Amino acid sequence: MPYDLNPGDVALMGVPLDLHSTFLQGPAFAPGRIREALHSGAANLTAEDGTDLGATDRFKDTGDLDVFEMMGQEPIDRIEAGADARIATGAHLLSLGGDHSVAYPLIKAHAERYEGLNILHIDSHPDLYDSQQIGPLGHGCPFARVMETCQINRLVQVGIRTMNKPQQEQAEKFRVEVIDMQTWHPDLEIRFDGPVYLSLDLDALDPAFAPGVSHHEPGGLSTREVINLIRRFEGQLVGADIVELNPHRDPYGITAMVAAKFVKEIGGRLLSR
Amino acid sequence: MPYDLNPGDVALMGVPLDLHSTFLQGPAFAPGRIREALHSGAANLTAEDGTDLGATDRFKDTGDLDVFEMMGQEPIDRIEAGADARIATGAHLLSLGGDHSVAYPLIKAHAERYEGLNILHIDSHPDLYDSQQIGPLGHGCPFARVMETCQINRLVQVGIRTMNKPQQEQAEKFRVEVIDMQTWHPDLEIRFDGPVYLSLDLDALDPAFAPGVSHHEPGGLSTREVINLIRRFEGQLVGADIVELNPHRDPYGITAMVAAKFVKEIGGRLLSR
Amino acid sequence: MPYDLNPGDVALMGVPLDLHSTFLQGPAFAPGRIREALHSGAANLTAEDGTDLGATDRFKDTGDLDVFEMMGQEPIDRIEAGADARIATGAHLLSLGGDHSVAYPLIKAHAERYEGLNILHIDSHPDLYDSQQIGPLGHGCPFARVMETCQINRLVQVGIRTMNKPQQEQAEKFRVEVIDMQTWHPDLEIRFDGPVYLSLDLDALDPAFAPGVSHHEPGGLSTREVINLIRRFEGQLVGADIVELNPHRDPYGITAMVAAKFVKEIGGRLLSR
Amino acid sequence: MPYDLNPGDVALMGVPLDLHSTFLQGPAFAPGRIREALHSGAANLTAEDGTDLGATDRFKDTGDLDVFEMMGQEPIDRIEAGADARIATGAHLLSLGGDHSVAYPLIKAHAERYEGLNILHIDSHPDLYDSQQIGPLGHGCPFARVMETCQINRLVQVGIRTMNKPQQEQAEKFRVEVIDMQTWHPDLEIRFDGPVYLSLDLDALDPAFAPGVSHHEPGGLSTREVINLIRRFEGQLVGADIVELNPHRDPYGITAMVAAKFVKEIGGRLLSR
Amino acid sequence: MPYDLNPGDVALMGVPLDLHSTFLQGPAFAPGRIREALHSGAANLTAEDGTDLGATDRFKDTGDLDVFEMMGQEPIDRIEAGADARIATGAHLLSLGGDHSVAYPLIKAHAERYEGLNILHIDSHPDLYDSQQIGPLGHGCPFARVMETCQINRLVQVGIRTMNKPQQEQAEKFRVEVIDMQTWHPDLEIRFDGPVYLSLDLDALDPAFAPGVSHHEPGGLSTREVINLIRRFEGQLVGADIVELNPHRDPYGITAMVAAKFVKEIGGRLLSR
Amino acid sequence: MPYDLNPGDVALMGVPLDLHSTFLQGPAFAPGRIREALHSGAANLTAEDGTDLGATDRFKDTGDLDVFEMMGQEPIDRIEAGADARIATGAHLLSLGGDHSVAYPLIKAHAERYEGLNILHIDSHPDLYDSQQIGPLGHGCPFARVMETCQINRLVQVGIRTMNKPQQEQAEKFRVEVIDMQTWHPDLEIRFDGPVYLSLDLDALDPAFAPGVSHHEPGGLSTREVINLIRRFEGQLVGADIVELNPHRDPYGITAMVAAKFVKEIGGRLLSR
Repeated sequence: MPYDLNPGDVALMGVPLDLHSTFLQGPAFAPGRIREALHSGAANLTAEDGTDLGATDRFKDTGDLDVFEMMGQEPIDRIEAGADARIATGAHLLSLGGDHSVAYPLIKAHAERYEGLNILHIDSHPDLYDSQQIGPLGHGCPFARVMETCQINRLVQVGIRTMNKPQQEQAEKFRVEVIDMQTWHPDLEIRFDGPVYLSLDLDALDPAFAPGVSHHEPGGLSTREVINLIRRFEGQLVGADIVELNPHRDPYGITAMVAAKFVKEIGGRLLSR
Repeated sequence: MPYDLNPGDVALMGVPLDLHSTFLQGPAFAPGRIREALHSGAANLTAEDGTDLGATDRFKDTGDLDVFEMMGQEPIDRIEAGADARIATGAHLLSLGGDHSVAYPLIKAHAERYEGLNILHIDSHPDLYDSQQIGPLGHGCPFARVMETCQINRLVQVGIRTMNKPQQEQAEKFRVEVIDMQTWHPDLEIRFDGPVYLSLDLDALDPAFAPGVSHHEPGGLSTREVINLIRRFEGQLVGADIVELNPHRDPYGITAMVAAKFVKEIGGRLLSR
Repeated sequence: MPYDLNPGDVALMGVPLDLHSTFLQGPAFAPGRIREALHSGAANLTAEDGTDLGATDRFKDTGDLDVFEMMGQEPIDRIEAGADARIATGAHLLSLGGDHSVAYPLIKAHAERYEGLNILHIDSHPDLYDSQQIGPLGHGCPFARVMETCQINRLVQVGIRTMNKPQQEQAEKFRVEVIDMQTWHPDLEIRFDGPVYLSLDLDALDPAFAPGVSHHEPGGLSTREVINLIRRFEGQLVGADIVELNPHRDPYGITAMVAAKFVKEIGGRLLSR
Repeated sequence: MPYDLNPGDVALMGVPLDLHSTFLQGPAFAPGRIREALHSGAANLTAEDGTDLGATDRFKDTGDLDVFEMMGQEPIDRIEAGADARIATGAHLLSLGGDHSVAYPLIKAHAERYEGLNILHIDSHPDLYDSQQIGPLGHGCPFARVMETCQINRLVQVGIRTMNKPQQEQAEKFRVEVIDMQTWHPDLEIRFDGPVYLSLDLDALDPAFAPGVSHHEPGGLSTREVINLIRRFEGQLVGADIVELNPHRDPYGITAMVAAKFVKEIGGRLLSR
Repeated sequence: MPYDLNPGDVALMGVPLDLHSTFLQGPAFAPGRIREALHSGAANLTAEDGTDLGATDRFKDTGDLDVFEMMGQEPIDRIEAGADARIATGAHLLSLGGDHSVAYPLIKAHAERYEGLNILHIDSHPDLYDSQQIGPLGHGCPFARVMETCQINRLVQVGIRTMNKPQQEQAEKFRVEVIDMQTWHPDLEIRFDGPVYLSLDLDALDPAFAPGVSHHEPGGLSTREVINLIRRFEGQLVGADIVELNPHRDPYGITAMVAAKFVKEIGGRLLSR
Repeated sequence: MPYDLNPGDVALMGVPLDLHSTFLQGPAFAPGRIREALHSGAANLTAEDGTDLGATDRFKDTGDLDVFEMMGQEPIDRIEAGADARIATGAHLLSLGGDHSVAYPLIKAHAERYEGLNILHIDSHPDLYDSQQIGPLGHGCPFARVMETCQINRLVQVGIRTMNKPQQEQAEKFRVEVIDMQTWHPDLEIRFDGPVYLSLDLDALDPAFAPGVSHHEPGGLSTREVINLIRRFEGQLVGADIVELNPHRDPYGITAMVAAKFVKEIGGRLLSR
């Protein structure tokens, strides 16, 4: 293994996969761009709680998984194995890049390690389709797959603003707790008992804040609202992913910088436990 | 007539007119771009209240008016006639594109059908000039024309942040109720008795949310604030326009997507009555 | 002197300096771009309080200082002298452009004229480094220089979100009052006794609102929040700067327009005293 | 039929299809953008040979085919039928938009009407793959399908600069005449006996001239070279397509304007016969 | 007069005028942007013939004319007067910015000083309309005005690719020598007897080289071809203008840099006489 | 060593260094972007001579040197050592990224291995300054350093268009053969006896073809001209670098794709020996 992890470390892992997208390719290149933003010289590595990710040896980059240009079950299995290998050390995983189809194997690996796992899913879309033209592994389906196959305590979705009838039916079937943008308020308090996995789709943000995503869905969260949500929800954060950055639509790297900011805040919270 | 409307239907109508603009051409191409965003494959057609505009036969596109590259009274008359023909069927009009000069004939047609018509005007500018270099039909003048020639119960303006002395005098003369950005608050409640026409200039939004307009006026509304305003004001919405999208300043189509989002929310409200 | 100032006038002054930047050049070109935005034909010159900067003869442009392509102590001295010459007339200075290193000599000139000077510093960075690779005049150091050499009553920082350990130590040493983005709230009231100098770094804004800066730091203030802060803080505003606009990262001039909006609001407040 | 064509007319036809693309969607929106550029007010409708397409009633827009968001054999059949219906009147077809998979049914329709049909194929890619991940109808395969199923006299390819081994074998099998960029010269003379169909992939152009395509392949033709090629090759031009415009990568509409220029030059040549 | 000119000097003069444009405003801001590019730190001031414009005191910037936001005869008269005042000193004028309507008064001033004046007009459009919607001073008309009112020996146009019937008739009436893009060749030799005024519309260039113009007309000259033309035509260059730069369409300043390059090459030729 | 090279292999090596630049940072991120373009899914890996870099095991990526955020002699020494370690195996080096200061140590390493080394230097600038504000290792000085310290047979420069007096004097002192853009012609034949090192600065290209560089110098080479030059000059190519890609100015990745194209053509030539 090209990395050396200890319990409580934070393990960055890149997932260069985008062939499960329905509209545009691009998220396969997200890991490199987020790293570039993290080290861009335009910012430092200190989270807002004062944790300096550049000063600790507990924040480690474990490189990219070998899933580039793959489709179907094979890369899904590799992602689950890659996640499992890292969290087996007791480290916390922070997965970067890919379309949202990567969340299914990432959460599966966590659900097997953490009993009573909860999911905080921040997104403009519920991603609960039973299937898409591209099949049941499409990037609009991962939370249906998760709810069907994993032991999940609660799935709470924040930022939703595209709920349609087929997904509404799935949400009811799986007892998803949906906090849509009509009910969202910055002072809303979100509480979990037990371990929490955070799945953060950048299109939860308004396109003003995160233009570099495949699906522009206006009326979303601000970057500040998401930072505060990351820092303030109650529960034991154990792992996370940041998905759907599409560098092809991010000409000035602003969205990559937003993702890097989230890396710092999530990393800071994971390390400060 | 190339369309078949019934009472209560929502009739989309494109107005490709921009020669009454003072600064830049472009809004003549807005109708095509908003349609493109509506059908872009990056979003679905369900409004946030659950109304699926793609599943009903009451949401109809009646095409573009023949006013392209026209100036002066002729296109104004054609717009009034086009609006009148559609609302005569009992349908609700949702007009797309053009500079703001199109609001005058659109509102005139509504004022003649709806007694006691109120106007909810969302904009960064009051558009109350008596005249401009381009004449009294310029895109900075339509609400002066409306107040002079139509029977309007109340004109309420939201988002204003460019009030100057000549327009202040006009606002007082016409008893316009101006809610400028200094007094605006997201929890403000807006109530009308009777029918309401909504005129929505995209530059009411902050340029961060809607860069694709001719006049960037910083310090404006967020997309979420406008969505909530559309959904929450009290009164009977009877018709609407979305104006001043300038595709020449919208390189990634983000503003067209915002306009499409408003089409869905306005359409949903019009259909749910 | 190529300008004729009277007590109470507002004197615009351009400072084309950017060689104290650590990452990218560009802010030397900001003065011209802000003037271009002020006179762009896409907006008028009336502030939100009704002051029309185009109708008064008390709002005067005194041109650019001769510091282009300079580095080190020489331009710093020229800026102090240029500021001093203008404020010696009793006019209020509104300085445009440059990287943030220009704040040191600007504030020095004010501190010598105004006893008990306070500073309201709006920024994403504390700019309190003792030194940088580029030396002690680098654009990350001006408030360390100010606190060491000037008589300052209070230094209040708003918008901070990059505080790291070395700067935290400096902040404590100089008793800086830091209102970081975790504690910021739009309804926060800020009060000063006596004269106030406002130093406004455009990267205090979220990159969604001000992309045209060298350092994108997500999670910042909205343009509206800054406008309201400018208008509402209590105290006697006596001078101001607007810094760090980088036209190379502002392809559509949106950030220059934001700066021009702030010129109008700051100018309106300075004139309305 | 919503159009009325006579022998010798030029029939514009839009083909909004892009789900046979391997990398990015977008070309489905090309027809609208090319029409927008044709009528943009920034240019007139006169070809360089003096033919004014705006002054003749022989240049007719027959609208878009109903293939949006389709995949597989169904849209291919519709395109063949749509082309056939138009050329059956004796009109010349000029097809706009879509990915290159549309060329197969377009050429098939022509090959059945015109005995001894030749093809002038301008492209950076030979598009001769036997199959792609997306199947045998992928946009990298149309000329393999054409050569297998149609009676073609000669297939001449110009602009090629991505020939690899599998396509080289196909080129030899089908006796394709490949003029790659190493052998291309602006003074090269190209001559056909009999009818010629022109299939013009915009990525034949260097990305400097046509950035708005899915596949940037540097080292290509200039716009002037393609205009001159269109006007100067010998043979009887009978129909044409312009494909692979991707508006998502054409923020300033420059590539759409290039396509509109080609519409004028091809239209002028078709009408001047 | 705010400048001090001697015979043989080159006098830069900015002309911030764009209200005679038919499509988009913007060229009024060109003078500032060209100066910014000249002094950008990304290039030096040496022309390709070795003349260093930064080392001579014969290259002088005489500032901008006071014509901003004017329309009609008044700015035209001011431009003629401004040009005349400068060339009366024996200096050579190099006018920057504005739409092409500025060429009429500029050439008029030269024609009165230089007997037998020739014009080398580099453009994609002949600009020979008798009138436009905006009137006879529109930016599509200046060479009709010139030929009607000035004593011109020869008018030679290079780069033309939009000739239509009304302009063809004007070209014949005024005996204009049109070298259109079909006949243009880089090795073409152009010779004049006597004084030559150069009017350079940046849209003569292909949009790949000069995107920052209001009218994108593909199929144009390369920057290199224009540089070589400036340096190689035979005749006595006496004055020049560079027009139609539109900074609103030049997000990265590339076209301003092209204009600055032409300033250096024209300036070098004017000084080397 | 994290790579395994054999004689005749091509070794890619990234050099993430840009602190020797005078104007803008950025080229430190070039290696990642060029690799991204090489593997983008929008192109294949076959050079125009048919060499498939994806099918051979002789084309190896040896990763990035550890010089990020360094300045001065230290990174220069590391680059020389890194180059030397690779070419000591008999492999050919193809170095990616960095500002042009990296050419000095790269060439030094080659000059010590290859007796009678020639240099083909393609650039808009001669880069012969004795020193710059940033010192004698600035990115405008490397060829002065090379000529002072290495045994070089001939230095031939192509694409030059910014020669000024101080550099002209250096060119004469070092007997540099300068083929400037005035003398350049696509059919020019360039011949060397013995080994040749190719140093390719992307700003040799016209900004239309390569906008993503720090210094836009209009009037340059086309991508096709450079491809043909790479393939056609006579001599034994032994190593090469591609420098000055600045991703901050390459929003659509077009310049990175141009660099990737050159990697394929240079790689193809190196392998086909």
